[in-house]
Amino acid sequence: MPELRKDPIIGRWVIISVERAKRSSDFKVSHPEDEEGPCPFCEGLEKLTLPEVFAIRKSDSKKDEAGWDIRVIPSISQRFDLDGGLERRGIGMYDVMNPIAVHDIIIESPKHFTDIYQLSGEQIELIINTSVRRIVELEKDPRLKYCLLFKNHGLRAGGSKVTRHVRSQIIATPVTPTRVKEELRGARFYYQYKERCIFCDIIRQELDTGDRIVMETDTILAVAPFASRFPFEIWILPKKHCSDFINIEMREIKDLATVLKTITYKLYQLLDDPPYNYMLHTAPFRHAKRPGYWRSITEDYHWHIEVTPRITQVAGFEWGSGFYINPTPPEDAAKYLREAKAL
Amino acid sequence: MPELRKDPIIGRWVIISVERAKRSSDFKVSHPEDEEGPCPFCEGLEKLTLPEVFAIRKSDSKKDEAGWDIRVIPSISQRFDLDGGLERRGIGMYDVMNPIAVHDIIIESPKHFTDIYQLSGEQIELIINTSVRRIVELEKDPRLKYCLLFKNHGLRAGGSKVTRHVRSQIIATPVTPTRVKEELRGARFYYQYKERCIFCDIIRQELDTGDRIVMETDTILAVAPFASRFPFEIWILPKKHCSDFINIEMREIKDLATVLKTITYKLYQLLDDPPYNYMLHTAPFRHAKRPGYWRSITEDYHWHIEVTPRITQVAGFEWGSGFYINPTPPEDAAKYLREAKAL
Repeated sequence: MPELRKDPIIGRWVIISVERAKRSSDFKVSHPEDEEGPCPFCEGLEKLTLPEVFAIRKSDSKKDEAGWDIRVIPSISQRFDLDGGLERRGIGMYDVMNPIAVHDIIIESPKHFTDIYQLSGEQIELIINTSVRRIVELEKDPRLKYCLLFKNHGLRAGGSKVTRHVRSQIIATPVTPTRVKEELRGARFYYQYKERCIFCDIIRQELDTGDRIVMETDTILAVAPFASRFPFEIWILPKKHCSDFINIEMREIKDLATVLKTITYKLYQLLDDPPYNYMLHTAPFRHAKRPGYWRSITEDYHWHIEVTPRITQVAGFEWGSGFYINPTPPEDAAKYLREAKAL
Repeated sequence: MPELRKDPIIGRWVIISVERAKRSSDFKVSHPEDEEGPCPFCEGLEKLTLPEVFAIRKSDSKKDEAGWDIRVIPSISQRFDLDGGLERRGIGMYDVMNPIAVHDIIIESPKHFTDIYQLSGEQIELIINTSVRRIVELEKDPRLKYCLLFKNHGLRAGGSKVTRHVRSQIIATPVTPTRVKEELRGARFYYQYKERCIFCDIIRQELDTGDRIVMETDTILAVAPFASRFPFEIWILPKKHCSDFINIEMREIKDLATVLKTITYKLYQLLDDPPYNYMLHTAPFRHAKRPGYWRSITEDYHWHIEVTPRITQVAGFEWGSGFYINPTPPEDAAKYLREAKAL
């Protein structure tokens, strides 16, 4: 039985898997999907995956057959179970609960593309719409508290060895992750003092100084953050205050698609197809907290996407301290990205 | 001029380097010491490094020449400056200070060994003694607040491509790193409720249940922590309560040397020379806080070393959430490590 275990000091939760690695050779496997073979995410090979949980399909097509634009399937790498309760309990001084969670793969194209910039703007809009729909769906489960949308592009960013087929992932969990809590706490602290959203203030200051702007549209701003942890780290924020990604507006979806396409292309050009991750930081599910708390989050939090190319090694110092050394000033990164050829 | 910049939301500090990468090929370099050549850490090649800041030497040997057992040199990869003040200041809403910091390399053997287990117990005791002496020395600088001792073994753990020569590193910083603060806060919170050190309680529970014990001596306990983030993660703790590593006793040094030698050998055997990091978590410098606060830390904090093999990929999900998925239950890891052949 898999378990969710809580670190008693920091309060960080860890999923401990069921499947016991029996021989030491098992431990050397660096990724659950380690084999080569036909791409299971290409149109026409739907039977190679678990049955889809959602798809945008042509009206005459059938579930788990060809004829789709976007397809959402459960991940095979984590065997989460949505039956039963959380059964949070103590083992001596430790805390444990059942790993009620969801892990989706969003297959972002029926064709074998490998990066976002290769897709049309309309296709990227479909992807964003699909993400919103899935998050809205997952929020209905009262046991789930948070939903993380992310992409692992390339092996060094945790991508798969089986296929580079373009996709993103959603994991929904029964706890709010530590990093997100930290950010919510920081944003709240600032709001209590200033009575302004810290992200809105960041947007104002970045628009004012301008030297860390990577790209700007009517509704979306992409910046190299002031205290970038990694070379070419980029944050993408809606200019209009909004805490919850599911409230994204049509115009913002269109602009976000443009920004994602442009930025992934520029990273590809400038850094020679670098491994990268991006992840959405959004407010916890509404039902997760009492109403008063939720009202506060809508004022002091602001959804955004963090894009982090993985071109440097993260070593013991960074891991042990949360204190990063970044050899590329964000002002330089922004300048190079602004000047890089667009599509 | 290099800068220390503070993330306004989480309060995490980042070092932004001076040297500006001018061409995009510069960005593809994954490590500052990227070239092959003679090992600059071997005895007889002392002139290839910056002048030593400390060494344990034979009485007739001269500074920066052969005849040493342990040698401490400044790192060339970070050009920190210890002249001048911190000059903490605001830039609009952001916080900046001068990067007053120290980055030492502790060369752990004059011969070209590559891992701790290859050294004699006496040599490892010398290394521990040297670390304590350097930390005591660094603590004298009132601008420095925290000191991180760590090891990057192997490329995937952030090790160098130039040489695998066995060494550890110390970085001392003018701020207490976020991860350490988080741990101090968690330990304090537990202490306020229970009036007991959380690490002492963990030691008691682990000795009681026994199934996560990796190794035990009279004074030192090594366990696979209950909520291990990584397969084969190991924490090494002194059994007797002590918040500050510099107060380590002679018997503990002897036992810690045995534990480090045994554990690194078992990891080498079991996981085929895996990349790994270890890092020391100890109390912040005494002068860093007011006396009352310091008295509290001596009661509610407990130094320990976290050993983390890097055999799985850390991907977007972990980065974005601080929520880890670990495929190897710590009870299994501990069992395999207990059963692995010792030296």
